[in-house]
Formats: sequence, C-alpha cells, structure tokens
Amino acid sequence: MADHLSDSCFFCKITKGEIPSFKVLETDLNYAFLDIGPVAEGHTLIIPKYHSDRMDQVPDEYLAEILPLAKKIAKALGVVDYNILQNNGKIAHQHVFHVHFHVIPKPNEAEGLGVGWPRVEQPKEVLVKTLERILSKL
Amino acid sequence: MADHLSDSCFFCKITKGEIPSFKVLETDLNYAFLDIGPVAEGHTLIIPKYHSDRMDQVPDEYLAEILPLAKKIAKALGVVDYNILQNNGKIAHQHVFHVHFHVIPKPNEAEGLGVGWPRVEQPKEVLVKTLERILSKL
Repeated sequence: MADHLSDSCFFCKITKGEIPSFKVLETDLNYAFLDIGPVAEGHTLIIPKYHSDRMDQVPDEYLAEILPLAKKIAKALGVVDYNILQNNGKIAHQHVFHVHFHVIPKPNEAEGLGVGWPRVEQPKEVLVKTLERILSKL
Repeated sequence: MADHLSDSCFFCKITKGEIPSFKVLETDLNYAFLDIGPVAEGHTLIIPKYHSDRMDQVPDEYLAEILPLAKKIAKALGVVDYNILQNNGKIAHQHVFHVHFHVIPKPNEAEGLGVGWPRVEQPKEVLVKTLERILSKL
C-alpha cells in the first residue's frame, strides 16, 4: 500500500504508531482509537490512513469501511443511544485537520454530543431551486 | 432484492415513492433527498432502503455505500464546510426512527449544525479501563 500519510500530521503519526494512542482497532485503511478529550465514556475516533482535511477528499475505499467499523465499535461499546459525527472546516467545529469520524455515546442529557438545530423555513420553490442546482452538478 | 421496508414508516414510504420527496439520488440500497426542514440550504438526508431505528442494525452493504454517496453530494453541493451527522435514540436527538445520515452545509456561524461539546476530563487509568472493556467485546 502506498503511504498517503503526512509527516507532520498528529493523527497520521498516531496511525503509524509514532505517537501512542488507545487503539481500538485497525485495518489496512483505517484506524480507531479513544478520544483523550471525550464528551462521554467510550468516545472513539475513526480516521482513514490517508491524510486529508476533508471527507470529500478521501478515496471511496477508505470511506466504505468506516460506517461498518463504527457499527462494530458501537456494538462493542454496548451503547443504545449514540451519535456519529464528522466535521469539515473550522466553522463546522473541526479542530484537527485530518478527517475523523466521532462515535459518541449519549448516556444522558448532560453528557455526549449537544446539538443546535437552527431550522430555517424554506418554501417549496426554494427547495426546488436547490434541488435543481444539486442535480445539475451530480 | 428482498424488501426490507416497513409499511408504516414515513421514510420507507419516501423510498418507495409513496410519499413525494425532493430526490437527490438513489441506488439499489440507499436513497437521498432534501430535508424539508433544513438547518441550511442544501441540507440532505441519506437513508438506507432497510427499515431500522439504529445504525448498528443496518447490514454492512448498505452502510458501505453511504459515505461515498455523502461525498458525492457534498461535491455536488459545492460546499467547503459541512457536517455529517447520524443520531441514534431520542436522547441523542433522533426524531424520525428510520436511520438517516445528515449532510449539512455550514455556510456561516448562525446556520447549519450547532455543536455542544461537554468535554469530560478522564484520567489515563479510566481510559485504559474503557479500552479494555471495548476490546473484550470486539
């Protein structure tokens, strides 16, 4: 496998074992480990062994594995309620600029992920225009 | 393909075309459409054509497709900053009980997903115990 890792990235170093981590599992393409600043016990990160800031830059073969791995981890955690979250961009709450997927148990109201949901009212005409715009780019 | 859909589920009905939707794309296994109560323009949902409440109940072949589809949609949306979110359980902010993945553009601070991050300090000994517990179940 070609090495798609960066020499300077903290998360790349974790996948290479150059920085220690609480490793949960590893495949040829992805690596999962405990978040050391968890928002709930068992909070786990899954990262591709491919350095890139954003999800849309990661080749499909890496991405295809990630949700099946998240499922496996959720089952091992034994959680019923939990969130899967992946942030792209500083404004979208990304803090480490190597793509990572959070598996976050939600044991109670206070712990785990909090969600803000500033719903906007969009009339049907606006949705139709948005859809046309997306479809023209697909 | 066997039909793994429910007769009474709103989202299952959408995948069957029994309820209209702003369809973005569709494969044999998954269906994507605009959220009609978006938190930002272009807010899209991806759902497996397999009825279940929670992500960990969905067969891997459905899950494997979802992030590559999310990537395709993010690119078509032309967004730079965005979030991928999937909620399991009412307490974890799930409102429709058919697994769905949100692709949510984050155009600015006010729109899109808000995130609450109640970080807990966990000493290394606690992380080690958590890890042992997970590894024993994997």
